[in-house]
Amino acid sequence: MAKETTSGAGQLKELTSRGENYSQWYNDLVIKADLAENSAVRGCMVIKPYGYAIWEKIQRQLDDMFKATGHVNAYFPLFIPKSFFSKEASHVEGFAKECAVVTHYRLKNDPDGKGVIVDPEARLEEELIVRPTSETIIWNTYKGWIQSHRDLPILCNQWANVVRWEMRTRLFLRTAEFLWQEGHTAHATREEAIEETLKMLNVYALFVENYMAIPVVKGVKTPSERFAGALDTYCIETLMQDGKALQAGTSHFLGQNFARAFDVQFLDRDGRRDYVWSTSWGVSTRLMGALIMTHSDDNGLVLPPKLAPYQVVIVPIFRDDAGLAAINEKVEGIVNELKASGISVKYDNSDNKKPGWKFAEYELKGVPVRLAMGARDLENGTIEVARRDTLTKETVPSANIAAHVKNLLDDIQQNIYRKALDYRASYTVSVDTYDAFKQKIEEGGFILAHWDGTAETEARIKEETKATIRCIPLEGDATPGQCMVTGMPSKQRVIFARAY
Amino acid sequence: MAKETTSGAGQLKELTSRGENYSQWYNDLVIKADLAENSAVRGCMVIKPYGYAIWEKIQRQLDDMFKATGHVNAYFPLFIPKSFFSKEASHVEGFAKECAVVTHYRLKNDPDGKGVIVDPEARLEEELIVRPTSETIIWNTYKGWIQSHRDLPILCNQWANVVRWEMRTRLFLRTAEFLWQEGHTAHATREEAIEETLKMLNVYALFVENYMAIPVVKGVKTPSERFAGALDTYCIETLMQDGKALQAGTSHFLGQNFARAFDVQFLDRDGRRDYVWSTSWGVSTRLMGALIMTHSDDNGLVLPPKLAPYQVVIVPIFRDDAGLAAINEKVEGIVNELKASGISVKYDNSDNKKPGWKFAEYELKGVPVRLAMGARDLENGTIEVARRDTLTKETVPSANIAAHVKNLLDDIQQNIYRKALDYRASYTVSVDTYDAFKQKIEEGGFILAHWDGTAETEARIKEETKATIRCIPLEGDATPGQCMVTGMPSKQRVIFARAY
Repeated sequence: MAKETTSGAGQLKELTSRGENYSQWYNDLVIKADLAENSAVRGCMVIKPYGYAIWEKIQRQLDDMFKATGHVNAYFPLFIPKSFFSKEASHVEGFAKECAVVTHYRLKNDPDGKGVIVDPEARLEEELIVRPTSETIIWNTYKGWIQSHRDLPILCNQWANVVRWEMRTRLFLRTAEFLWQEGHTAHATREEAIEETLKMLNVYALFVENYMAIPVVKGVKTPSERFAGALDTYCIETLMQDGKALQAGTSHFLGQNFARAFDVQFLDRDGRRDYVWSTSWGVSTRLMGALIMTHSDDNGLVLPPKLAPYQVVIVPIFRDDAGLAAINEKVEGIVNELKASGISVKYDNSDNKKPGWKFAEYELKGVPVRLAMGARDLENGTIEVARRDTLTKETVPSANIAAHVKNLLDDIQQNIYRKALDYRASYTVSVDTYDAFKQKIEEGGFILAHWDGTAETEARIKEETKATIRCIPLEGDATPGQCMVTGMPSKQRVIFARAY
Repeated sequence: MAKETTSGAGQLKELTSRGENYSQWYNDLVIKADLAENSAVRGCMVIKPYGYAIWEKIQRQLDDMFKATGHVNAYFPLFIPKSFFSKEASHVEGFAKECAVVTHYRLKNDPDGKGVIVDPEARLEEELIVRPTSETIIWNTYKGWIQSHRDLPILCNQWANVVRWEMRTRLFLRTAEFLWQEGHTAHATREEAIEETLKMLNVYALFVENYMAIPVVKGVKTPSERFAGALDTYCIETLMQDGKALQAGTSHFLGQNFARAFDVQFLDRDGRRDYVWSTSWGVSTRLMGALIMTHSDDNGLVLPPKLAPYQVVIVPIFRDDAGLAAINEKVEGIVNELKASGISVKYDNSDNKKPGWKFAEYELKGVPVRLAMGARDLENGTIEVARRDTLTKETVPSANIAAHVKNLLDDIQQNIYRKALDYRASYTVSVDTYDAFKQKIEEGGFILAHWDGTAETEARIKEETKATIRCIPLEGDATPGQCMVTGMPSKQRVIFARAY
């Protein structure tokens, strides 16, 4: 299908094909489509304007959904005192090995020569951790906010940067610093906290399916894959084009763990003191990785219209200044018509790039719809419409083009979702024996299999096949069976995959 | 005027009055109006939901204005390698003494007992500075983006947190970590960079005057007050109710300093290589301090309607459930009417707080307009309308209330601006002798005086009076004269004040 176009994005920007080297294709694409790049600081990325524009659309939409479900935003400190970390045992266990630690607060001129050194006299009494997640500092703060059931629930979200000192990093997928949102809620009852956990899981699922056009499986993690400090971790799992799974978001039921660690109690309606119940939930710039890997092809990015920085690009085809002037005049009306219909549009009439170069460039950048207008179109009252997802094009009347484009954008949004859903369906299999499992796991995709529920079996499978249990699905077939490895009873099939 | 109300916000929440102790009044207000609080980390604040909602409105409006002037957002790393700092001499000089330094990347269990310690084996080869501002990491990045004049201009903005290890901190006004935006632009010519510097100064001035309702003086800093690394620092200066000045935003013309430091050259139209010209400009959560201190009174916050989290609060006055039900029904229509007119509104019909408590609470929180409706209003088809700025109230027909409120909000926005402008006018004086200056500076306000242009005289005045030159104003009287201290020639009067 890629061969139908005349674009040559691959030639111009040397994009590796997926078949050749999927991992290299991803890296090439992130760089060449101007989404992000590595910085001078190990593991930290620069999110470039085009990539950040997509992230802003993700943020805006999620933020609207959080507010529509009663949440408010707040901001908590970047730094966490080291001692706070130790207060929740499994939490520190989970994060201690990847913390950036601030030990000093001043530089001074190097007495031995040029440059600056850390001033040894400016050592902090207690080291500060750059937040890898904010449960501890937030629950230390909530202690001051909560006395009675009337102070509950607290439904706060924070948009922030966090740091986890990962040893092997990849743009968007795993970076030392990343951007995210983290919701932290406090409740009077267990039931209410669980309800909140599931509510936010559903918000994530709706967002990822309806806006990112990526199908998700909602599920719960096994104990060994839980967030450090959670009683239950719910997740949405997605499947990339190389057959690997990607966890796109998590929502944690934290029970009373952090309330206990920070002694946050409240008086309930009956005047009894109890610890507060809590949840936390987050998605990050990792979503950008999922977005790129789900839809894009060997010609470049394919963006869902709902998140594209601009949904339409218009390219004029002209011989001389007079020709361009005539097209400019016509296109101005079209631009206004599109904008009036709520469609974002860029008109690229720069004269230092040829149309072929522009076609390739906007294909690489995943602009959903490309309009092209030349002298003959002007004469005939037509315009050429190309869609990025199918790489097909047609010539249509330029009158009433906005309505046509609007339908087309809807169709593209649905089509790429359907395509991703079909892909996932074709790479989701059920297996009943460990031998079949070992064979199928090499082909990639989601594997539904019975598991005996023990950490030992889970660890053995991971050790032997590099596959992890992505989740115990919340929906679908819940028929009991026997573990494919041990033959012991299994409550339902769980989803295995190799994962990012 | 405060005595006209029956609210008793002061009694309920014990707000210190401005006359009694201005500084304590400010701190009380920030805490009691739920804007922010100190955290467990020295100098770092928690921005609470109500305060953050105001910051979000500031962000959204500024972001729209940046985009309307051709800027895009991007994101650069939190950490800066220590060596980058030394590359621009005056820059490191300006920031070295207040840097949070990351030296390690791992914690481990304390072998001697409980808790965790910094793992001495996980020492970074080169220490990382938590960004106090991002010129260095950004110009190191721009080096890879710029080869030719065709790559220019670059017009990037970043919304981020930054850290400056201040020893004496105050909520919003001076905190170790704060939120801000920093624009960083790259240009082919000096003229274009200067034009950009002034353009953004004007964007800030328009925003602060039209949205925050705070009058500003636009000016340029003296060399000793310049940003570390700038050739010129432009600023907007505001005057608080205690007669102290507050710098609300700065826009820097950086010349070729950072391009030289990071060797960023480009080929111009004539094929010659030259260093790139640059600007940077920023405003921060400090604006929240200016907002609070400019308009608020002894009863609490006064918020400009354009930035209030909700512009209208409606309080029902009722005896019993039936009474409330009748009011609820009527108010529902009013809420819809207000929302349809683009007015944000909160209806507080909670039954565990008395109307008097609610009146005081929303007065404290600075909600611009309060509507109250009781049984008699229902009968008479009226509603009570109270405005926060003047603390006056009137009873008006409830029919067509949205139009009435809309006018009122406009009027409040203009009135608080005018009030601040009048205040500033009455605290702006010209003096011609140093004796008169020393007397006037004790009364607070802006003092226009002649200065000989030397750093020595400037330092002497600061030493002797604690007054600094806020700026050399760009507009207004530019008549030459003689320095009030030395009698040497002066090009024009400059503005002195004691400042935050």
